[in-house]
Amino acid sequence: MNAGGNALTLRLLHQCDELGLQVSSGPSGCTIIDAGLQAPGSVAAGLLIGEICMGGLGSVGLVPGAQHGWPAWLEVHSAQPVLACLGSQYAGWSLAATKEETGGRRFFALGSGPARALAGKEDLFRELAYRDRADAAVLVLEVDRLPPQVIIDKLVRDCGVPPEQLTLIITPTTSRAGTTQVVARVLEVAMHRAHALGHTLADIVEGSACAPLPAPSADGLVAMGRTNDAILYGGQVHLMVRGSEAAAQQLARDLPSGNSPAHGRSFAELFAEAGHDFYKIDPGLFAPAEVWVSHLDSGRTWHAGGLQMDLLHRLWMEAA
Amino acid sequence: MNAGGNALTLRLLHQCDELGLQVSSGPSGCTIIDAGLQAPGSVAAGLLIGEICMGGLGSVGLVPGAQHGWPAWLEVHSAQPVLACLGSQYAGWSLAATKEETGGRRFFALGSGPARALAGKEDLFRELAYRDRADAAVLVLEVDRLPPQVIIDKLVRDCGVPPEQLTLIITPTTSRAGTTQVVARVLEVAMHRAHALGHTLADIVEGSACAPLPAPSADGLVAMGRTNDAILYGGQVHLMVRGSEAAAQQLARDLPSGNSPAHGRSFAELFAEAGHDFYKIDPGLFAPAEVWVSHLDSGRTWHAGGLQMDLLHRLWMEAA
Amino acid sequence: MNAGGNALTLRLLHQCDELGLQVSSGPSGCTIIDAGLQAPGSVAAGLLIGEICMGGLGSVGLVPGAQHGWPAWLEVHSAQPVLACLGSQYAGWSLAATKEETGGRRFFALGSGPARALAGKEDLFRELAYRDRADAAVLVLEVDRLPPQVIIDKLVRDCGVPPEQLTLIITPTTSRAGTTQVVARVLEVAMHRAHALGHTLADIVEGSACAPLPAPSADGLVAMGRTNDAILYGGQVHLMVRGSEAAAQQLARDLPSGNSPAHGRSFAELFAEAGHDFYKIDPGLFAPAEVWVSHLDSGRTWHAGGLQMDLLHRLWMEAA
Repeated sequence: MNAGGNALTLRLLHQCDELGLQVSSGPSGCTIIDAGLQAPGSVAAGLLIGEICMGGLGSVGLVPGAQHGWPAWLEVHSAQPVLACLGSQYAGWSLAATKEETGGRRFFALGSGPARALAGKEDLFRELAYRDRADAAVLVLEVDRLPPQVIIDKLVRDCGVPPEQLTLIITPTTSRAGTTQVVARVLEVAMHRAHALGHTLADIVEGSACAPLPAPSADGLVAMGRTNDAILYGGQVHLMVRGSEAAAQQLARDLPSGNSPAHGRSFAELFAEAGHDFYKIDPGLFAPAEVWVSHLDSGRTWHAGGLQMDLLHRLWMEAA
Repeated sequence: MNAGGNALTLRLLHQCDELGLQVSSGPSGCTIIDAGLQAPGSVAAGLLIGEICMGGLGSVGLVPGAQHGWPAWLEVHSAQPVLACLGSQYAGWSLAATKEETGGRRFFALGSGPARALAGKEDLFRELAYRDRADAAVLVLEVDRLPPQVIIDKLVRDCGVPPEQLTLIITPTTSRAGTTQVVARVLEVAMHRAHALGHTLADIVEGSACAPLPAPSADGLVAMGRTNDAILYGGQVHLMVRGSEAAAQQLARDLPSGNSPAHGRSFAELFAEAGHDFYKIDPGLFAPAEVWVSHLDSGRTWHAGGLQMDLLHRLWMEAA
Repeated sequence: MNAGGNALTLRLLHQCDELGLQVSSGPSGCTIIDAGLQAPGSVAAGLLIGEICMGGLGSVGLVPGAQHGWPAWLEVHSAQPVLACLGSQYAGWSLAATKEETGGRRFFALGSGPARALAGKEDLFRELAYRDRADAAVLVLEVDRLPPQVIIDKLVRDCGVPPEQLTLIITPTTSRAGTTQVVARVLEVAMHRAHALGHTLADIVEGSACAPLPAPSADGLVAMGRTNDAILYGGQVHLMVRGSEAAAQQLARDLPSGNSPAHGRSFAELFAEAGHDFYKIDPGLFAPAEVWVSHLDSGRTWHAGGLQMDLLHRLWMEAA
């Protein structure tokens, strides 16, 4: 997946002017691609970063035209959703540095993208029984500043690549690219929830999804709230599965965000109520709004959940 | 069209791993591409096979996002719909072998794709006044086993190519690729019906269409029923025509499947009632659900028919 | 932008057979691409000409599938909408020749495309503070005959390129390519209106739009009426802006065609009433039907206007 991700990263570097990116040399000679910190970035950059996050095993694109009264939507597809989403795209690599280590503010980020599968630091990789091999690594960080030297040292060590072969893509949520690449996780959110529900991952053989793309906000909390709401209330996911019919039906029933008692309120409101502690919000809420699960052997498709476009309109849109 | 089809077949061979295909050498050294027999195949493979079927004279793609409550749709376009659909994509080449010839079970298939236009065995080619020339041939077979030696011999003889220059793509209806490439015939079904209605084919200068993509089923009858229902009750076709206004209006009026007294019941039900004899079902049913015919000289567009999504939801989808 | 336009023009020349174009040598050795005069042209040609018109700084494509009861829609996107739309696509270069100069009928056209930015003859270019540099120029003319020698001489002189480096693309509104490339101006119409409303252009950082694609008509007035109605009653535009929140809200409120007292009647009807004088029609009508303006700093999105699909159905479509 790093091979796939690196090939797409070359494309990103190639089009950096058009995509509004700034490229620089970071600590120890790693490559830093700024997609929204000092650089303006763009929606198009976010789409390509979404594909990089999936290690080249999925596609991310804009849905042409307005849908359900909202002007911008994106879609995601993967014929290898387990590897693409959980093995690569999931923001699961905890990267922390103390004040002492940074010599300044403490640093925290959840790394996503192919480099995770090279380092294999998370328990998840034992379960997936996958480990990537590559000479170069690419990691995406949804942060609002550059990572300190100590984090670069750790990445290089854990990935086993020379620092010049490490590329970091920085995508603050407040930027267009950042908002876009987070909403592009709509399929990953479904895969992550399926995993949490105990569904046999290997049975999920193909997945596609779409979600409305909110306007980013310069306020980080607002921006983060919107990317979450986009998926929880506007995300539609279609999974094709093998395995038993009962398991497929159960997955469809249990997957949508509507199963959570927290459903129906904005992420920003819930987050404030939870004292800004993400882990105090019911994990069942982090799921797409509407799902279809097609069972390939029987040909049956189960449907559950539904869009809450009224809520998104109320949150995102005002009459001029 | 074999030139166009062969170029796309090279792409198929190139991406065989990603697309879930298995490639092998068949009788007399022809190339066999298994898109769903032993190989898993994929929706993406079916889209590309759909374009191969049209001899490179049309495009087939997924419609991004859910539409009308169903998660997957495909679209087809051709600026040369007569050649692409009738000269190539139509499954019109009857290929039969007796028990004696096969030394086992009897074999029957309706071949589709560019090789038909090389062999020119069907009456239709006299009418189209078209005959392809190429050094290599590609044919698509919607069957659930490999064709016997006697069929390969016939294909090689009729196409006038050496066996190593013959490629067969095997797409069982029960596979994802098979279901996809059949639904990709939504425009061809309209062209075939227009032909049966006696419309001047040369007047049809451009066509586009879309249809919902059902989940395949491991049960061949169920899978076949769904691909038909997708077109009859979910197919939308837009034709641009020259010729007289009266003929254009007449075509729009007569084309939709709603003109058939059999309309409104599932193909599976009708097929069972007809004793599994396809030819006992009213041919007027094999048409798209909704059509627009735009007359380029007057600028008038006639509209007729409509989707029956309720029927498709009932047939294809269950609340989880 | 001529560099971008020229690269796309090479693609147009490359695919001229498939796209139904005829290429010839014009006065003084310039290149003439006929996209609908003697040549049939195609919708696909019109999409690519739309991108040429935007100097390679935007994309134009078909929206897959029927939407709102109409079978064909196109979409436009640009991350540099000011330059792409106003600096290039806008039909603002007035090209006139008297009877005496042509030796026959008088000639009049409004040139659009990258060559405008090379000549820089319009006041607009002072405001945009942009001037293109290129060795070759491409201009699109929505006319129903070839331009006379005197116009070629003027173009060559004003663009500062040798005549062999000048390419003219001829797209009569009555052709499929012509109708398509005009409707592809849906985003440009919004940008032009924003300019007329006095909005700070540099604040508009990204734009996307879609509009229904009508059937062309052999009657020039009917064809022109339809391309206008497509935008005024079927155009949807999404702009991403910087600047003040108040300005963004004001733009959303003032932009839609519904602000004009002329709104609700077909262009053909209004044009007849105005004695075929375009400039007697309220300029506020020339705007998209529905808009969203997203303010990137606050994350607020204002919405105004709405589609009038009933009117378009009545104007464009008849029950068969």
